[in-house]
Amino acid sequence: MSRLRVNTFTVSLDGYGAGAEQSRENPLGVGGEELHEWLIGTRTFLRMFGGSGGATGLDDEFAARGIANLGAWILGRNMFGPVRGPWPDDSWRGWWGNSPPYHTPVFVLTHHARDPLPMAGGTTFHFVTGGIHDALERAREAAGDRDIRIGGGVSVIRQYLEAGLIDELHLALSPVLLGGGEALFAGLDLPALGYSVAEHTTSPLALHVVLTRT
Amino acid sequence: MSRLRVNTFTVSLDGYGAGAEQSRENPLGVGGEELHEWLIGTRTFLRMFGGSGGATGLDDEFAARGIANLGAWILGRNMFGPVRGPWPDDSWRGWWGNSPPYHTPVFVLTHHARDPLPMAGGTTFHFVTGGIHDALERAREAAGDRDIRIGGGVSVIRQYLEAGLIDELHLALSPVLLGGGEALFAGLDLPALGYSVAEHTTSPLALHVVLTRT
Repeated sequence: MSRLRVNTFTVSLDGYGAGAEQSRENPLGVGGEELHEWLIGTRTFLRMFGGSGGATGLDDEFAARGIANLGAWILGRNMFGPVRGPWPDDSWRGWWGNSPPYHTPVFVLTHHARDPLPMAGGTTFHFVTGGIHDALERAREAAGDRDIRIGGGVSVIRQYLEAGLIDELHLALSPVLLGGGEALFAGLDLPALGYSVAEHTTSPLALHVVLTRT
Repeated sequence: MSRLRVNTFTVSLDGYGAGAEQSRENPLGVGGEELHEWLIGTRTFLRMFGGSGGATGLDDEFAARGIANLGAWILGRNMFGPVRGPWPDDSWRGWWGNSPPYHTPVFVLTHHARDPLPMAGGTTFHFVTGGIHDALERAREAAGDRDIRIGGGVSVIRQYLEAGLIDELHLALSPVLLGGGEALFAGLDLPALGYSVAEHTTSPLALHVVLTRT
């Protein structure tokens, strides 16, 4: 049975899932890189971007779980890029170069239509203007029996949580202060939405928690 | 040099420092006990309440640091008790029985004057109606060279953080969802207030972070 998952989503001590002032220079916002220290040294993460080596162990296990058995991804517009408003042209092709680390259809939520964008390595970006339910329906069709992963950002995850559609959410709490940005939990009553802590464990760099819907 | 400290202050995954609906039955609010699982089994915590045994190790070290070198405490009214508004009489003497675990003068912030309340074991509760600066001045006088600890709750800690008066703040992030309650970080830009992460480490039950003011 295909599940809708969030994995390796990292939150700062003060509750922000990304830094403020996202830009081409700071895809994760100011301070966003530091937030992901637990992840960026792992073997899985390095391999996703064509590297080798890297750390194994608990953090790497969560990174590897994150990319296992995926048939489609859903991303918010800001996670796809820094362009806002209507697409001026087709020149922006994501943060990830010619061969993005998705290798599946990726459904990008946007208010502005754009033709599908096939990339190397099996990734095709589809631009969905019909909202979160439409994106999920198209992702389910593409994924078949495999799972669908929501990459982020905060606003997209919050929308799917509020709709009770996420089956499993792995969060990593990082010992970093951002001071501002997009707050993941503000005003969300997750227990009331049916979520509870199914797993928790710690590595030296993060508190890992897996939430599931009961 | 006497410092103003917060220690062993525990925050849920979703950013709450206490559960909702505090009452006589739930001094820490609904779910508040579960939040402190890392602490309540430690040797230091058990000894504070006259018990013996308990776990040693990292969590216990943070618990022990929390009570070392203290000359005074500051508490918010709600941390002292569930009574709201003017004191109806002197019958409420804190949550902790005849011998509270403070063993120093304790300055309780309140809008309602009340005579000092001496207890067994060296604790005297003083009721301060002059606000956070007045309470700190009186605590400094009482503490001498020793440190002053703010016990909580969230609102008192936030007021002292916003005033830039806290020198060291030890937080424990707990893998628990509360869903609501008092949010410690909401709207506080701690880096802008001069705070940064001086130490971080993890135990199986918590992500420990020490913030200091730079």
